[in-house]
Amino acid sequence: MSAVFERIAIIGAGLIGGSIARGAMEKGAAGAVSIFDMDAASLKRAGEIGLGDVRATIADAVRDADAVFLCVPVGAMGQTGRDSAAAMKAGAILTDVGSVKGSVAKELHAAAKPGVHIIPGHPIAGTEKSGPDAGFGALFEGRWCIITPDGGGDAEYRAATDRLAAFWEKLGSKVERMDAQRHDLVLAVTSHLPHLIAYNIVATAYDMESVTEGEVVKFSAAGFRDFTRIAASDPTMWRDVFLNNKEAVLEVLGRFDDDLTALRKAIRNSDGKTLFDVFTHARGIRRSIIDAGQDTAAPNFGRDIDEKK
Amino acid sequence: MSAVFERIAIIGAGLIGGSIARGAMEKGAAGAVSIFDMDAASLKRAGEIGLGDVRATIADAVRDADAVFLCVPVGAMGQTGRDSAAAMKAGAILTDVGSVKGSVAKELHAAAKPGVHIIPGHPIAGTEKSGPDAGFGALFEGRWCIITPDGGGDAEYRAATDRLAAFWEKLGSKVERMDAQRHDLVLAVTSHLPHLIAYNIVATAYDMESVTEGEVVKFSAAGFRDFTRIAASDPTMWRDVFLNNKEAVLEVLGRFDDDLTALRKAIRNSDGKTLFDVFTHARGIRRSIIDAGQDTAAPNFGRDIDEKK
Repeated sequence: MSAVFERIAIIGAGLIGGSIARGAMEKGAAGAVSIFDMDAASLKRAGEIGLGDVRATIADAVRDADAVFLCVPVGAMGQTGRDSAAAMKAGAILTDVGSVKGSVAKELHAAAKPGVHIIPGHPIAGTEKSGPDAGFGALFEGRWCIITPDGGGDAEYRAATDRLAAFWEKLGSKVERMDAQRHDLVLAVTSHLPHLIAYNIVATAYDMESVTEGEVVKFSAAGFRDFTRIAASDPTMWRDVFLNNKEAVLEVLGRFDDDLTALRKAIRNSDGKTLFDVFTHARGIRRSIIDAGQDTAAPNFGRDIDEKK
Repeated sequence: MSAVFERIAIIGAGLIGGSIARGAMEKGAAGAVSIFDMDAASLKRAGEIGLGDVRATIADAVRDADAVFLCVPVGAMGQTGRDSAAAMKAGAILTDVGSVKGSVAKELHAAAKPGVHIIPGHPIAGTEKSGPDAGFGALFEGRWCIITPDGGGDAEYRAATDRLAAFWEKLGSKVERMDAQRHDLVLAVTSHLPHLIAYNIVATAYDMESVTEGEVVKFSAAGFRDFTRIAASDPTMWRDVFLNNKEAVLEVLGRFDDDLTALRKAIRNSDGKTLFDVFTHARGIRRSIIDAGQDTAAPNFGRDIDEKK
């Protein structure tokens, strides 16, 4: 079976970039991989562990690539996209893996030059680790990858979109096409809000620890511990998600806050009926997830967990 | 090795009651188990699957027991405790497994009669399942069990406390003695707040689903799914926890809300520095949990997960 792309370029040799590089080679989705990272140590390490052909600049990395994957924090997509597009060959695809699609699509389209196909993407996969060594080829197996192509593209653009979808499928992903704004709202609910809340609950507990003298950590298995796993995620990545998906996040956060105010009031008023009704109602969506086959035996905050950190 | 108690009584044949019954017999911590449940179907089922000697009333169940374990929702502890204490023999232990200790201790002490030793307890273990069939003997292995004995007990009381601790240790638990008020504050942080927040986030997403047309469920693996696992927990149990640990829960909820308001403001003001600092800071407590050996490879919200529901 022939490769989908003769050569791909990975810009950013972190967990996702490294996993695309490994997956593409292991599964024969690309004939060759060029790799660049603006951090010299990461780039050196990427070369040492064989993630791809190390290139000294973005321009060198993308020049001969059929598809360029921007695997950098959302806040760095604009500059990285401009540097890439300027050096890319005609007919090549410029895509990304950012967790926010509206703002990234805007920046990439602004960076575009004729003949380069802008097709933003978002593989919904990860672990709480980062860096070149964190990547592994099976990361995307069975996971969704959302791509947000232009609705109005021509035949050549549509063919490029099909090629990008085929690449992700070869890595084991289930590909979904979606409008960028819709992606940002759905992910605000399913990913961004849960992460923000988890960060917040960890911060709260951290403050409480002066009162509880280490016992929050000691008895963390009672539920709290699982929220802390998220706290090991990359702070830069998440800062950029919240800065770039502000509108949708604030909307769902407003709803969350309204709901929490109602629960707090029920507790204060010893209103057992409201508490019972909310808790019972919450079973419905749990049941939907099980029925939709989206449950797994072990919760993992959307991450594959391969070993103890 | 001889049993710690010749006979124990389990009041409430649910997940915890069933697991104590099984654990006590499997590990030889008790010579015999009497069991009662106010729900006729659960009691019948408990007998069918061999959880213990089925008794028709609480009085019948506790009369010849050396230790009585109240395994009912926190809100039912008062009545169950009174019914039990009235029929118990002198020198026997009356304990419980409730997630709140201050209010339960008060109710049990009020129910006490001379010669019955009141020693509240809380095994920090569970799954999201409930009912007689959910129990298994290994549930408490390696898990904390907090007991909150009276500080001022006499020698006989202290000996009874040691016996109860030995029972839990035989089931595999690590036993910790703690003041009831302190237990309630620590658990408000490590368990009650995380569960309330998880219930709330599920409710919020449920409301959003009308806007997102089923895509919250579809892409739930991005982080949201893990919060929904909690929504399968017993609504009655959790209603009672929040009604009976109101003060501590409202205190930590107030802190959580202050912290969330600050994060929301940072997002609204595009204040990336604050977001980055909070996210980075949160790594500290995560590191503490790993260093304290309280981490596991798979997050489980304080539950042992044995199979797909």
